[in-house]
Amino acid sequence: MKWLKFLFIFIPISIVLEVSGFHNPLVLFIVSCLSIIPLAGLMGEATEEISVYAGSRVGGFLNATFGNATELIISILAIRAGLFDVVKASIAGSVLGNTLLVLGASMFVGGLKYKSQKFNKKAIGMSTNMLLLAVIGLCIPAIFMHSIDSKLISTRYESLSVAVAVILLIVYILGLVFSFYTHKDIYGTEHDGSDKETKWSLKFSILVLVIATVLIAVESEFLVGSVEPMSKAIGLSEFFVGIILIPIVGNAAEHSTAIIMALKNKMDVAVEISIGSSLQIILFVAPILIFISLLFRPMSIVFNEFELIALISSIFIVSKVASDGECNWLEGVQLMSVYLIIAIAFFII
Amino acid sequence: MKWLKFLFIFIPISIVLEVSGFHNPLVLFIVSCLSIIPLAGLMGEATEEISVYAGSRVGGFLNATFGNATELIISILAIRAGLFDVVKASIAGSVLGNTLLVLGASMFVGGLKYKSQKFNKKAIGMSTNMLLLAVIGLCIPAIFMHSIDSKLISTRYESLSVAVAVILLIVYILGLVFSFYTHKDIYGTEHDGSDKETKWSLKFSILVLVIATVLIAVESEFLVGSVEPMSKAIGLSEFFVGIILIPIVGNAAEHSTAIIMALKNKMDVAVEISIGSSLQIILFVAPILIFISLLFRPMSIVFNEFELIALISSIFIVSKVASDGECNWLEGVQLMSVYLIIAIAFFII
Amino acid sequence: MKWLKFLFIFIPISIVLEVSGFHNPLVLFIVSCLSIIPLAGLMGEATEEISVYAGSRVGGFLNATFGNATELIISILAIRAGLFDVVKASIAGSVLGNTLLVLGASMFVGGLKYKSQKFNKKAIGMSTNMLLLAVIGLCIPAIFMHSIDSKLISTRYESLSVAVAVILLIVYILGLVFSFYTHKDIYGTEHDGSDKETKWSLKFSILVLVIATVLIAVESEFLVGSVEPMSKAIGLSEFFVGIILIPIVGNAAEHSTAIIMALKNKMDVAVEISIGSSLQIILFVAPILIFISLLFRPMSIVFNEFELIALISSIFIVSKVASDGECNWLEGVQLMSVYLIIAIAFFII
Repeated sequence: MKWLKFLFIFIPISIVLEVSGFHNPLVLFIVSCLSIIPLAGLMGEATEEISVYAGSRVGGFLNATFGNATELIISILAIRAGLFDVVKASIAGSVLGNTLLVLGASMFVGGLKYKSQKFNKKAIGMSTNMLLLAVIGLCIPAIFMHSIDSKLISTRYESLSVAVAVILLIVYILGLVFSFYTHKDIYGTEHDGSDKETKWSLKFSILVLVIATVLIAVESEFLVGSVEPMSKAIGLSEFFVGIILIPIVGNAAEHSTAIIMALKNKMDVAVEISIGSSLQIILFVAPILIFISLLFRPMSIVFNEFELIALISSIFIVSKVASDGECNWLEGVQLMSVYLIIAIAFFII
Repeated sequence: MKWLKFLFIFIPISIVLEVSGFHNPLVLFIVSCLSIIPLAGLMGEATEEISVYAGSRVGGFLNATFGNATELIISILAIRAGLFDVVKASIAGSVLGNTLLVLGASMFVGGLKYKSQKFNKKAIGMSTNMLLLAVIGLCIPAIFMHSIDSKLISTRYESLSVAVAVILLIVYILGLVFSFYTHKDIYGTEHDGSDKETKWSLKFSILVLVIATVLIAVESEFLVGSVEPMSKAIGLSEFFVGIILIPIVGNAAEHSTAIIMALKNKMDVAVEISIGSSLQIILFVAPILIFISLLFRPMSIVFNEFELIALISSIFIVSKVASDGECNWLEGVQLMSVYLIIAIAFFII
Repeated sequence: MKWLKFLFIFIPISIVLEVSGFHNPLVLFIVSCLSIIPLAGLMGEATEEISVYAGSRVGGFLNATFGNATELIISILAIRAGLFDVVKASIAGSVLGNTLLVLGASMFVGGLKYKSQKFNKKAIGMSTNMLLLAVIGLCIPAIFMHSIDSKLISTRYESLSVAVAVILLIVYILGLVFSFYTHKDIYGTEHDGSDKETKWSLKFSILVLVIATVLIAVESEFLVGSVEPMSKAIGLSEFFVGIILIPIVGNAAEHSTAIIMALKNKMDVAVEISIGSSLQIILFVAPILIFISLLFRPMSIVFNEFELIALISSIFIVSKVASDGECNWLEGVQLMSVYLIIAIAFFII
């Protein structure tokens, strides 16, 4: 991920542009996106370092919880700006991107090097079970609401959203208990981490984490501010920006890590990154966003029909492809093709 | 299931209340529900005793056919009373309850005691195949009807319902032939029953069965009579009563048996109870109800959108969770969570 | 397949009827259908002969590509005649027929003779993955279009259709590369073909192929010409003709081959015929038809709701039933039952 380092140059550029009152929203959008990518990578590295110091269990929790901090920060700022549709689209888009694009690209690139790559069928089976539950849980309110066309007053939507958010969050916590306490053995030694070496001191890691968080927040502010004028200027829907572009930015670091792992024939790690990250988005990020939205203006968890179709399709194909504990380049192509078809459909509508 | 015995006290109470012209529909509803629970358990015991006397094959058929007699009786009386929506909701609700709540609770409770519980993957695979076919068969008429918004005259709905009912019933009978004749070996010795001991004489068992059936019919009459006024009185929709409350009453006995089996690490039996019971509902009870409705006023098999979504979601998550022939407490939590989200959504709408 | 030979008599009959200006469209429809059945079989034989001469790889490509030539010819003529709904219905119907009816009948008939039949789980798993991708790819444009009720101008539908067609075709080609080059080993020796004997000389095979193609085109012309008047005359919807009748005609040869293979306990071949044929329809025939329609009047790939439901249901039940690499007669019954329920529903609407 050395190439990521060069992107740090966009942080001062974006700040100079903002301060100088530069007005092209497309340029501001691109520059802030490019600044967030290396910062998200840096934040991930710092979290991992702290995790090693914290010992295997607490570290595992930390990693599992702050792995999607970038999405969380962007989304919170977008909620404050009232961009609910962009936030919901980016939740759906993150799941889509992680399960289809990240996993597909890993399977494809890994499959070009190795004829067949194996991964822990049992652990991944538990993860895809969880993902299916999570997507059903997240989609049921939306499907119900679409079926009864707005006979309900909106306060009911919100109370349903909060109830679902509470249930999903409890399941998330129980899932962590499952994988770090009661059944940690089925995940092999990956979660152990005792053999990892530290690069940085604990103090330095915390300092890096704080700085990265602050800078991501600043850049996300620029990003969120540019979404609306940029969409208007170049004629892309805010929906497309939310479901395709923002998730790619937020997940770029995970994306490159997963592919590197696939190339090292550590397909277990690659699959875990993509499915685990999707789980975090639905079971942790989405509920937290629902709760945070109550501080500003309540956001319902009701996805639109396109998001539902995309989410449900992606879960089924990923569950199916991952069910045998083996993968090859063609399965990667299959996942990426579904992503591409969905992306083109979103682009055209 | 000793606690069930105490509930017999509600039989005389309910009769006294009815006879004395007591008018609170909520009390009548609750009391008749509480009376049915131990009667359903008693009927199950009597059927099982008779099955032992009848020998393994005929006995298996008897058990498979009268296992849901309580639901059948309640539903027939509800059809006679014209409560079609309640009947259809309780069919969908029984499947939901059996696949998500009963199975989920068994996996959860069993999983707290045993780290991992195994069950006969092959036999359960055949059952979930059957369940998928059954749900697709049951849902296709509904989905078709929803897509063409009432361009059809209603007699066509009914002839489609009857055709589907005939097909499902034939598949049910062929399924019994499969599991009791041609492929009984894949179900292991469970179905053999030759080692079972009898508690009661045959005559006494038949007497108990007759008495239980009569009393269930009486109590179901009270129950059905109280549904409409009770729904109005406390502001719950009849739909909620049908899809959540009635199935819990009808399945209470199976529910407790399944959990007891899970605690004895006989997960095979627990899974068989929950999935087998769902199959009976769709492939046997539902078709029989369609035929019986022809005697009164023809009932179509067309479910509403909420029922469809709930049925389809439940089948997918159960198939997925059961596909590996193993379970643990977290899978139980996953199933129960989906049930809870669906129940909350039904409660709110 | 000796009985097929007797059907050749319908070729001269149909030509005589057409030339003599015979006007009963039902008779013309039936006679042209009956003529196409043996011709499709003959074409298949000729293709197979040529494949043997061409060597295993090129031969495999030939077989995989021209296996559905009959459907392709009928559809091209129907597109020229502007019968878009019939063409789309027959694409959906071919997938339905191959996955549910052909596979179900093979499993049923084979299962009556052999208690349990095994097939190559890994190869079939790859095929059902592909089928799931293909159906999702084919359905996403339709689902999207149904959700936004005609806010789009139709040129956008078409550009989306072309984009999807290009992606599906690329995936098809990559799938051939996978099964004939990079991973040919997982398909066992079936694809090798080196042990096959030739019946005909290469020249004669090519001659037979050319003659069969010409005659199929002629008969398809009669068939397509009779669809509209026949539907009107006997009150069947063109949709029913497209989704049920035409696919049965187009797939009759494959149907009988698959059943013969099942009876020889070569379930691998039977499953490969049914799933492989469905894949060809979606990944090769459908895209080619989209491209060809651009020459006349652009046809969108947007299926109606009934087709979508039928396609999606069929994929799920086939994936589930085929997932364990074993089958029995009851699984055959399950697949055929779903087909029957869908066919009855189509007949009634």
